[in-house]
Amino acid sequence: MFRKIAIIGCGMTKFGRHEDKTLTDLMTESSLEAIRDAGIDEKDIGAIYVGNMLAQELNKQTLLATVLADQLALYNVAVDGISNGTASGGSAVRNAFLAVASGFCDIALVTGVEKMRGSPRDKVTDLIATMSHPSEYVQGATLPSLAAMFTRLYMQKYGVERRHLAMVAVKNHSNALKNPYAHIRKAVTLEELLSEDNPKNPVVADPLRLYDCCPMSDGAASLILCSLEEAEKIVDTPIVIAGIGQASDNPVVCEREDPTVLEALRRASQQAFKMAKITPKDIDVAELHDAFTILEIAESEDAGFFKKGTGHKALEEEVTSLDGELPINPSGGLKARGHPVGATGVAQLVELTWQLRGEAEARQVKGAEKAFSCNLGGFASNVLAFVLARGD
Amino acid sequence: MFRKIAIIGCGMTKFGRHEDKTLTDLMTESSLEAIRDAGIDEKDIGAIYVGNMLAQELNKQTLLATVLADQLALYNVAVDGISNGTASGGSAVRNAFLAVASGFCDIALVTGVEKMRGSPRDKVTDLIATMSHPSEYVQGATLPSLAAMFTRLYMQKYGVERRHLAMVAVKNHSNALKNPYAHIRKAVTLEELLSEDNPKNPVVADPLRLYDCCPMSDGAASLILCSLEEAEKIVDTPIVIAGIGQASDNPVVCEREDPTVLEALRRASQQAFKMAKITPKDIDVAELHDAFTILEIAESEDAGFFKKGTGHKALEEEVTSLDGELPINPSGGLKARGHPVGATGVAQLVELTWQLRGEAEARQVKGAEKAFSCNLGGFASNVLAFVLARGD
Repeated sequence: MFRKIAIIGCGMTKFGRHEDKTLTDLMTESSLEAIRDAGIDEKDIGAIYVGNMLAQELNKQTLLATVLADQLALYNVAVDGISNGTASGGSAVRNAFLAVASGFCDIALVTGVEKMRGSPRDKVTDLIATMSHPSEYVQGATLPSLAAMFTRLYMQKYGVERRHLAMVAVKNHSNALKNPYAHIRKAVTLEELLSEDNPKNPVVADPLRLYDCCPMSDGAASLILCSLEEAEKIVDTPIVIAGIGQASDNPVVCEREDPTVLEALRRASQQAFKMAKITPKDIDVAELHDAFTILEIAESEDAGFFKKGTGHKALEEEVTSLDGELPINPSGGLKARGHPVGATGVAQLVELTWQLRGEAEARQVKGAEKAFSCNLGGFASNVLAFVLARGD
Repeated sequence: MFRKIAIIGCGMTKFGRHEDKTLTDLMTESSLEAIRDAGIDEKDIGAIYVGNMLAQELNKQTLLATVLADQLALYNVAVDGISNGTASGGSAVRNAFLAVASGFCDIALVTGVEKMRGSPRDKVTDLIATMSHPSEYVQGATLPSLAAMFTRLYMQKYGVERRHLAMVAVKNHSNALKNPYAHIRKAVTLEELLSEDNPKNPVVADPLRLYDCCPMSDGAASLILCSLEEAEKIVDTPIVIAGIGQASDNPVVCEREDPTVLEALRRASQQAFKMAKITPKDIDVAELHDAFTILEIAESEDAGFFKKGTGHKALEEEVTSLDGELPINPSGGLKARGHPVGATGVAQLVELTWQLRGEAEARQVKGAEKAFSCNLGGFASNVLAFVLARGD
C-alpha cells in the first residue's frame, strides 16, 4: 500500500564526550552532514523528526525539533519530537517513514540525539530506569540490575558463561577500533576481562562488570528519507527501507512467561522480515542493541539468526565476527561505538547504510546486500526492527 | 494522495486533581472510553500513540505507550510516544493520522496524558520553561514571563486593556460551568477580576494575574482514528479530519520580526484550511490554546478569524461567546477546562467531535458543521492546526 522509501543521505557526529558542543550543535552537525551527503537543499525537506529521551532533564531543553528547524531556517514544515525511551531513534525513523509513505511529504530528515556526559551518573541511571514498569521502578530496578538478572537466567538455562559475555566485548571493541565515529576505541582481551581482580573492570551488577555495559555517550545521527522513485533520481545507491516492525511486551520483566525470551523483538523482527519478503538467512550484516553484552547474544537468537540458546555458540565459533558468516555490530555496537540513547536507533541505520553502499572502510562487510537492525526501548518492552536492502 | 481519515471514538477523564489515580489509570480510562465510544474491539487497533511532556520527571515514567499497550493486552502493534512540549497531544494525533493515512494500519488509538498535580509548582514551571530557547531559558524566561511581555506589547500596539483579558476568563469560566469534564467550574465576574486588591487574583507576571493563566491539571483524552471508508461502516457520524497543519517559528521570541504575530500559527492554519479546502469564515466553532488569556485573542486573529489587532473587539462584541457567531472555547479552554499539557491537543479534538456530533449538551454550539483547533508548543514556536468536519 505504501510507496517504497529509501535512505538517500546519512550523517553522524563522532560518539563520545563532547564538552565543547551543545545539544543543538550535535544535532545540527549530523543533520547538515546528512543533507550534504544526499546532495539536496535544506528547502527540499518537508518534515523533521527528532528522537531524544533525556534532554528535558539533562539539558533543560524540550522542543529539540523546533530548534533544529530554526537552525535550518525551515519554518513551514512539520516538526516533531519522538520519545520512546532508548528506542526513540528507531521510532523517529518509523514515523518519518510514515510521513513520506503517506505522501504527506516527499523528503524527511530524521535526527537522533543525546548529550549524557557531564551529568551525574546516578541521575542518568535513574532517568533511564523510568523505562521500567512503575511497579519495578519503585523496587529500585535499574536497567543494569534487570540485565544482571536476565544474564543469570541465561547462564542457568542455556549454559552461557562469563567468557561468552567477554567475547562480545572483545569483538565489539575490536570492530570499534576500525570505526572513527566510535566512542571507545580501545582493544580489550578475554584475559583482561575474565580476571577477577581487574580494577578497570569492576562489578556493576553481578555477574555484569563494567565491560559488559555500554558507555554513556554524547552524539547525534541523521538520515534523509525519500520515496524510492525520487531517490533514484537523486543518488546512485539509494538504500531501501524494505521492512519495519514494531512490537511491545509486558513491561514487568518478571511477569513474562519466559523472561529469557525477547518476545517484542521476535514479533518486530517477524513483521520486518515479512514486509521485506525475506528471511533471517538472507541477512548479510546486523546491528543489534547490545546495551549489555548478554543482549547481543539473546537478540541474535530472537531476531531469528540462531536457535534459542545457541547464540553464544555462534559467537564462540566466530560466525558473528567481522569476517564471519553474519557479522554483528561491525560499528562496535552500543558497547563500543557508544549509546547516546536517543541517537542509537538512527546510528544503527547510518552504519548499515554505509555497509550496504560499501563505504564502511576498514570494517566493511564484503558484498553486503541486506542488513538488519533492532532498537530496544526499556528492557525490550518496546522494540523496532528494520531491514535495509541495496537495490530494490 | 492520502485516504481520508475520520474520528470514530473519543473519551476523556475529568480534568483536575486526581490524587487517587496514577498516570496509567488516567490514560487507560480515557482510552477504554474511546474504544467503547467507537464500538470497536481492542484487537482492531493497529497502532497506539501517546502524547506526553512531563511524565519522565514528574511521574518517573517513560514508556507510557508501552504501558498502555500492556493494559490493553496489545503486543503486536506499533506503539510510540510523542513529545512535542505542550503540543504533544496535537503531534500525537498528526502522527496517528499519518499511520492510518499511509495504510500502515487501519485503526489507531491516540491518547494524550499528563499528571501535574502533587509536584512542586516551581518545578513544573521550570520543566515547562525548557520549551523556551536555551538562550532564553538561562535568562530565567518562563512561559508566564514570556506571556506577560507579549501582553504588554499587545496592549501598546493594539489597545488591548486588562478588561479584555478578564473577558476571556469570564467567558471561558462560564463555558466550563457547562462542561462536566472541566477542571475549574466556578463563575467569575469582570468586577472580581479587575479589582486591584483581590487576594484570590494575585499578580503572576505583571500584567498577568492568576486568572489570566491556565491551571496545572491531571487528565487524559483519547481518540480513535480510522479511514473514512471504514468509519462509515462502523459509526453513524464519523467526524472527518479534513485538514492538518504544522509549522514552527524562531524559538527566541524576542528575535521574531514582530513578536506580536504568531507566525507558526498563521502557517499551520493556512496549511490546514488549504487541505480542507475551506476558509476561516466557514468555521462554526473553535478550540484555541488559551494557556494565557492574551493567547486566545492573538490566536483568534492569526488563525484568520479576525483582522490582526481586532480580536479583543470581537470578544467584547460577544462574537466568540457560546451563542455568538464564532464560539471560541466552548469547553472552557485551557483556562478553565484545564491544561494537562500532553492531553490538551487531544482534548480539544474530543470537544470538537462532541460539538460536531451534537453531543455537547448545555454548551452545544447549534448546527456546528466545521470546527477548528490549534495546539501550541513553546511560546508558539511549534504549532498544530486542525480542521474537523461533520460529513465528507
